[in-house]
Amino acid sequence: MSIEKTIWPGSTQLAPSPVVLVGTGDGKRRPWDIMTAAWAGTLSSDPPMVGIGVRPSRFTYDQIEALQCFTLNMPTAAQARAVDYCGVISGRDTDKFSTQGLTALKASRIVAPIVEECPVSLECEVKHRLDLGSHVLYIGQVVAVQVTSSLIDDKGRLDLAKADLLAYAHGHYYSLGADLGHFGYPVKKK
Amino acid sequence: MSIEKTIWPGSTQLAPSPVVLVGTGDGKRRPWDIMTAAWAGTLSSDPPMVGIGVRPSRFTYDQIEALQCFTLNMPTAAQARAVDYCGVISGRDTDKFSTQGLTALKASRIVAPIVEECPVSLECEVKHRLDLGSHVLYIGQVVAVQVTSSLIDDKGRLDLAKADLLAYAHGHYYSLGADLGHFGYPVKKK
Repeated sequence: MSIEKTIWPGSTQLAPSPVVLVGTGDGKRRPWDIMTAAWAGTLSSDPPMVGIGVRPSRFTYDQIEALQCFTLNMPTAAQARAVDYCGVISGRDTDKFSTQGLTALKASRIVAPIVEECPVSLECEVKHRLDLGSHVLYIGQVVAVQVTSSLIDDKGRLDLAKADLLAYAHGHYYSLGADLGHFGYPVKKK
Repeated sequence: MSIEKTIWPGSTQLAPSPVVLVGTGDGKRRPWDIMTAAWAGTLSSDPPMVGIGVRPSRFTYDQIEALQCFTLNMPTAAQARAVDYCGVISGRDTDKFSTQGLTALKASRIVAPIVEECPVSLECEVKHRLDLGSHVLYIGQVVAVQVTSSLIDDKGRLDLAKADLLAYAHGHYYSLGADLGHFGYPVKKK
């Protein structure tokens, strides 16, 4: 019995995606700023590499072009409203940290800020830049990770249930649902 | 009051990520195969571009190098066990479609197969290739999307709740949880 399929033109249907606050600037000549992005993903393990797509019209684009670094801050479900705001309002006109009650901290290895209230922040140095059309892809090496200490479990790992990370799919924000198992479980069961 | 942070070396902590079955081959000289990947994401909107990271040791790497196309098939939470299997077993030795009770269908625009049982499949032509270290990044333009017709709602959109897509975070599979709202909601409320 075959399953009926509908064929659409190509579009951005891959889901879910992460949703991150991209931190840029140096807090001196270029103000610290955050922008929401969902066009992001891990692309390689060793060295750890992430990619983000940024429209050239964005303030974040100017900031990354100038300083060649950014942070990816993973927000919680409780921060969904602030995350949405930071995707709509431009940092050219507004200090989004202060309007959203978020705190910019200097990262450990780069000049860009991390968001103190986000449970996990990745500090990234740009290694590649590729013009893809509407968005420029920046590929960054993750040079450090900052985690809220109270969310680290007794095995030294981020407790994801406590972190309550946000996901993005087809225009909506979601919390993560049921944990369905860990990688390699059918093999391990044998 | 400051939040205590723990600083780790750089690692692949970005979460959640999508988890997809990457379909490759032409069903003739190169067998149709699927491999699970979580290092994947949308990278640009127009044209729609996705990226996947593939280790050169993988059969999927040989297949993409030879044919320059792939599909990304988004599985459901109910398919988590098959998804995990397809990330552990190599298509060099095994027809994963038949062992997992999955059906390969020829895509509409490329020679690679879609997975009939997955609610959404993206047909992708490789446009860029970048060696990032452990993984090679393939950036593909999404040239068509196939959706299981029974999951399309009366507005012509994929009904995500019915689709029950799978997410991946820190070695575990998750279903999507509560829908927290759609993009732009604080602005729209004004």
